Amino acid sequence: MLLDDIADVGRDPRRGGWSRHLGDDAEAALRAWFTEQAGRRGLAVETDANLNLWAWWGDPAAGDAVVTGSHLDSVPGGGAVDGPLGVVAALAAVDELRARGVVPARPLAVVVFAEEEGGRFGVPCLGSRLLTGALDPDQARELRDPDGVTLAEALAHQGHDPARLGPEPARLARIGRFVELHVEQGRALAPRGEALAVGSTIVAHGRWRLSFLGRADHAGTTRLDDRRDPMLPAAATVLAARAAMAHHGDEARATVGRLHAVPGGTNVVASRVDLWLDARGPLPQTLVDDVAAAAYAAAADEGCTVELRAESVSDAVTLDEGLADTLAAVTGAGRLATAAGHDAGVLAAHVPAGMLHVRNPTGVSHAPDEHADDADAAAGVRALADVLEELCR
Amino acid sequence: MLLDDIADVGRDPRRGGWSRHLGDDAEAALRAWFTEQAGRRGLAVETDANLNLWAWWGDPAAGDAVVTGSHLDSVPGGGAVDGPLGVVAALAAVDELRARGVVPARPLAVVVFAEEEGGRFGVPCLGSRLLTGALDPDQARELRDPDGVTLAEALAHQGHDPARLGPEPARLARIGRFVELHVEQGRALAPRGEALAVGSTIVAHGRWRLSFLGRADHAGTTRLDDRRDPMLPAAATVLAARAAMAHHGDEARATVGRLHAVPGGTNVVASRVDLWLDARGPLPQTLVDDVAAAAYAAAADEGCTVELRAESVSDAVTLDEGLADTLAAVTGAGRLATAAGHDAGVLAAHVPAGMLHVRNPTGVSHAPDEHADDADAAAGVRALADVLEELCR
Repeated sequence: MLLDDIADVGRDPRRGGWSRHLGDDAEAALRAWFTEQAGRRGLAVETDANLNLWAWWGDPAAGDAVVTGSHLDSVPGGGAVDGPLGVVAALAAVDELRARGVVPARPLAVVVFAEEEGGRFGVPCLGSRLLTGALDPDQARELRDPDGVTLAEALAHQGHDPARLGPEPARLARIGRFVELHVEQGRALAPRGEALAVGSTIVAHGRWRLSFLGRADHAGTTRLDDRRDPMLPAAATVLAARAAMAHHGDEARATVGRLHAVPGGTNVVASRVDLWLDARGPLPQTLVDDVAAAAYAAAADEGCTVELRAESVSDAVTLDEGLADTLAAVTGAGRLATAAGHDAGVLAAHVPAGMLHVRNPTGVSHAPDEHADDADAAAGVRALADVLEELCR
Repeated sequence: MLLDDIADVGRDPRRGGWSRHLGDDAEAALRAWFTEQAGRRGLAVETDANLNLWAWWGDPAAGDAVVTGSHLDSVPGGGAVDGPLGVVAALAAVDELRARGVVPARPLAVVVFAEEEGGRFGVPCLGSRLLTGALDPDQARELRDPDGVTLAEALAHQGHDPARLGPEPARLARIGRFVELHVEQGRALAPRGEALAVGSTIVAHGRWRLSFLGRADHAGTTRLDDRRDPMLPAAATVLAARAAMAHHGDEARATVGRLHAVPGGTNVVASRVDLWLDARGPLPQTLVDDVAAAAYAAAADEGCTVELRAESVSDAVTLDEGLADTLAAVTGAGRLATAAGHDAGVLAAHVPAGMLHVRNPTGVSHAPDEHADDADAAAGVRALADVLEELCR
């Protein structure tokens, strides 16, 4: 299985799992690996203005292309399947089509979208958002990684002109249909006893940064009344996020998985704490409003201030129903809604986009335990090949 | 003022202030600067087995030495005065003694203790604890910095044999008296209208690490009942620490200034959160017990586990009363208790140790705003010179 080829790329001994982010050595190695694999298959690879990779079977200029693929980056300390499974399945489906003697009647491309997880620069689906114009390139160039490096600096460092970032409507117009295969994120298919599902909807989701500003001082000598410690309202906000998740119904999610104290010394009252709220559900903004109200109140109690900033917001997406019907007809699979964001959801505003989900027996996602059995992955490849064959007729 | 010489060393654009830690470029530059300054004064510099620097006026082997000095490292994003003021005041006091024509009747040394803040490897007073045997060298070699580098690896990298770490009783036995000048940490001297104070006591203090272990998963797809999110009990523990500080009386301190979520992805439920509790006061262990009880309860509520580890514990210290009487008689300054730890507190278990505090008009400490006015620093130098002259008679 092709995933084995890249199993050791980007292993993260500190966090566990794998860390593969835009511009790091692991991600560069995966790009090189993909380019080499595409080349072996006689696919012509191009890197677009936004660092997405396209491997073409047929002439892209012909238009109405069938495009499949996913991403190769990961969350920090994530698993090895989320993203790469869709890319290797796409390459394997090309092999399958060739073995079947299929000659596509329209161009077919395998795409690798850049920085889907937003693991380094914070905005998920960075490559597809830039491609489609969903993210302003000026804003994008100023995004910073945890070390303070801007996206513009990082791109320049890897020899990509950051001035090129931005929408590519002509490239987008070439795409007739887009299908992304992805490992299931959640626990639905195992109880159903089904290996595959067709994506139906993607829930609304977003990321908000809350910055609590206080005053650094000595942990030993500063009396209670003299403290303006931003860690206190930050902690209260973590608890408020959980309370909001419980309050806003079964579909609501609110998570603080990233929190950063400045300066971060053991014997120092922090001057600033940044935390990121990942909120999802039918009405994520109302949930965020509740959490923000708690954050402002807790900050005021401690003499701190709060800055709230939406880093990315994605409305609910219904994937193309006609394409979903085709996917279901070809594969025989049922439907599955997802609470995870995807490049397919970004593309869906512009081209018919669909998804195939492959059962995850652990149910764990964004963590080393995420998994797809080989048999299910193989079933996914066959189903994807069937779909591509149908769409390329 | 000599502090101006090093004002730009280790500036930290990310955190603000200064970051100077054992083994980094800034700390290496400060060591080189100190060695050069000592050399200019004809003082013979040696680096001991534990990375402390000693600059000798007179023959160390003669014994009963008068030693003064402090440290050059900082907390992360700290100020430029805490530590360096005591070192530059020591050098300036040597100049003052020379200008007065004093010929010490016993050896005099200026010492720079390594990693007093524990900013990189977590254990404060690392150099003095190793020198005195208060820290086991095997434990010390295994200490890790935030990047996972061990102290042994860091020392080997800078060309210092880590096997040498450990107590040096013969070196310690040379010291007759130790006096450390330090910027005030707190807000006592400004209201008193006094530039200087003689140290009396150092409160009991320590650092405890609490590690909360949960299960990483997807922030969007993981339902409430499936979550084991260590960020929740960590947040509850931050609030419990504040409650314990309020409950345990005016002298109690409890601070969480450092918190680290693993893997730290915005769209990932954390697998692990480490936080460090800095606790001080008459009975820090009882305070820690209260916080730990809250931590265990909150962790159990979330299906997480907790590991609690004392990283360093220092009992209350009463500095040598005879030496304090001498310091007070020579300088005319009043007494001041401190809630900050110092190398003088570590040495006090072995040799008569005293402190001179220099007024801090901002009251802020371990942060860029910590300050000493030039006139107060000059008064500190004169007072230190008077003390050294008296002790070297």
